[in-house]
Amino acid sequence: MAGAPRITFTTDYGLADGFVAACHGVIAGIAPAVPVVDVTHQVPPGDIRRGALVLAQTVPWFPVGSVHLAVVDPGVGTARRAIVLRAGGHLLVGPDNGLLMWAARELGGPTEIREIAAPALTLARISRTFHGRDVFAPVAAHLAAGTPFAEVGPALTDPTRPAEPVPGEVLTVDHFGNVQLAHSTAEFAGADTLRIEVGGRVLTVPLRGTFGEVAAGELVAYADSAGFLAISLNRGDAATLLGVRAGDRIDVRSG
Amino acid sequence: MAGAPRITFTTDYGLADGFVAACHGVIAGIAPAVPVVDVTHQVPPGDIRRGALVLAQTVPWFPVGSVHLAVVDPGVGTARRAIVLRAGGHLLVGPDNGLLMWAARELGGPTEIREIAAPALTLARISRTFHGRDVFAPVAAHLAAGTPFAEVGPALTDPTRPAEPVPGEVLTVDHFGNVQLAHSTAEFAGADTLRIEVGGRVLTVPLRGTFGEVAAGELVAYADSAGFLAISLNRGDAATLLGVRAGDRIDVRSG
Amino acid sequence: MAGAPRITFTTDYGLADGFVAACHGVIAGIAPAVPVVDVTHQVPPGDIRRGALVLAQTVPWFPVGSVHLAVVDPGVGTARRAIVLRAGGHLLVGPDNGLLMWAARELGGPTEIREIAAPALTLARISRTFHGRDVFAPVAAHLAAGTPFAEVGPALTDPTRPAEPVPGEVLTVDHFGNVQLAHSTAEFAGADTLRIEVGGRVLTVPLRGTFGEVAAGELVAYADSAGFLAISLNRGDAATLLGVRAGDRIDVRSG
Repeated sequence: MAGAPRITFTTDYGLADGFVAACHGVIAGIAPAVPVVDVTHQVPPGDIRRGALVLAQTVPWFPVGSVHLAVVDPGVGTARRAIVLRAGGHLLVGPDNGLLMWAARELGGPTEIREIAAPALTLARISRTFHGRDVFAPVAAHLAAGTPFAEVGPALTDPTRPAEPVPGEVLTVDHFGNVQLAHSTAEFAGADTLRIEVGGRVLTVPLRGTFGEVAAGELVAYADSAGFLAISLNRGDAATLLGVRAGDRIDVRSG
Repeated sequence: MAGAPRITFTTDYGLADGFVAACHGVIAGIAPAVPVVDVTHQVPPGDIRRGALVLAQTVPWFPVGSVHLAVVDPGVGTARRAIVLRAGGHLLVGPDNGLLMWAARELGGPTEIREIAAPALTLARISRTFHGRDVFAPVAAHLAAGTPFAEVGPALTDPTRPAEPVPGEVLTVDHFGNVQLAHSTAEFAGADTLRIEVGGRVLTVPLRGTFGEVAAGELVAYADSAGFLAISLNRGDAATLLGVRAGDRIDVRSG
Repeated sequence: MAGAPRITFTTDYGLADGFVAACHGVIAGIAPAVPVVDVTHQVPPGDIRRGALVLAQTVPWFPVGSVHLAVVDPGVGTARRAIVLRAGGHLLVGPDNGLLMWAARELGGPTEIREIAAPALTLARISRTFHGRDVFAPVAAHLAAGTPFAEVGPALTDPTRPAEPVPGEVLTVDHFGNVQLAHSTAEFAGADTLRIEVGGRVLTVPLRGTFGEVAAGELVAYADSAGFLAISLNRGDAATLLGVRAGDRIDVRSG
């Protein structure tokens, strides 16, 4: 591994149980010198799409050589495959259900994908319901500790892909209630205001550089830190005001 | 310490205050080279039983040589004792209120218990209400940094033990709503379905290997990743459906 | 940096998005050998006062040489300045909105303040809405990795200060519902009970050393672990019982 490897860790396990820590423990036993950074464990249970978006907007900020372990895995213990992708000098480890694909694209696209099929890289006993601990964490740890990627298992060329967002889809609603849309601000270059239609209402929203450029309590559109068009309520919660959540659709036009 | 020592850290402090970080700071000053892994800080306030269960299901996954710091301590500042247990090459540090005993058992049983009575291992000033920071964290850090166990204080042979679960007791409800019961699946070997009685209702639940083996929205019983019988609702929340929480009791029979 | 440097990290970003991890990733690329300790990311959105209090009660427990990165920044992307303070051998990095000042005071008072104005210490592309990732995290990482403080930018002598608490102000309500007040117990030395007036009710509360000295369900006043007068409900939630939250005021007298 080049650089300063980190294992990043993303799941829907929540923080109240011992699931996350059990994985940390397994990693500590295999790759004791590799720091683990928790991305989030609050992906809504089973929400692969949300997990894929968080990963895509986060992993590019880690150094080359990082291994990204991600487990949102409603099909655990069934026939779904377990995979490792290589992309842009990073490795991504998780279930083959689409979770890893947008992150791989942000890293430059997957250059190699392998199916996990190496008993030497997993725990000896594999439970039917906790592959995070028994399969994915040990594989990520072995890779971060230097095991060659080729030892993971056979190459695979037909990974499961998530459905692409439709224009105007609410991609994420963040902790602040900012609404991230499947649009870039480049589509609205030169506009001073946007006309958005949502839930039967039509609103005119100024297009600015940051939410602090409008008064408290005002809506504003801007290019968010991930490069998407976002709608924010300065010092407030735009998603609640607009009554939208991830997966909803907002119609956006210049003017 | 053999292996790759970690300090694990489990409390009911929550994540919104600075309590957890103050303990991390104290540890950083004493054992700067020892990584600290947060298990959970969302044990319900004062819920010793829940803390004991999370610890028991988590600490065995850490390498030998780890020090497990756990603080769920409603009796802080009163006459309750502070202890360190040795079990299976691990050390457990916390209040003598039962919190550590199930974890010690999972690690092979406590081979030595000492009462914390060494002013050199605690902070110089000990508050009455924050022994996590002033007593337990510094003791754990000194032990992880190499202080011999015998320096902790006098041996102790009568630790406080938690009441053992009764058969069918709901041990934990996890983040996904899975209901973990005080039964092993071995008790129901050969059964294809289980008959469960809860809140006046009688339900027949298939016994399978993982929740993905039943349709979405169906109940299923299986051996969970900690080895207990659990009841899950595939892609849903079984605890809410059944109306149960930790400490409740479900009657389970074959058939 | 003397000692065992840590970067501590405090924000209002929450734990559900990738914001915190993106900052960790940036730090990993610049200061790979410096551990990062999360203080809390659950400061209520934009609540500078709460952030300032958590920092003040936490950072003194970290070793000299630590760098404290804090971002509660409702004015991001506007004209508000970005600063680094030096205090008591620690550095504090964040927006110039008062957030860092009480922590600096607890560390002995700021001895030097500089405005961040060094393009070499930030990311090359700075977004308008995520200075945690693009400005503050990289500056903190460079400082922790050994960049001299003087390279941050020009000295500054007029930092923004938060309004001082008024006597009896509820400073914080912690995870347990303990009510921390802007009083010290020294003001009530010798008193066996306190008379508190809140929401039109007058209550007599015993002044003790710890909450375990009163029966479960009883109110008690004591010196909390940060040195403030606090009111607690043994095994319960005093804030809910009293109907108070941060910023409210309770009148307290001896007797």
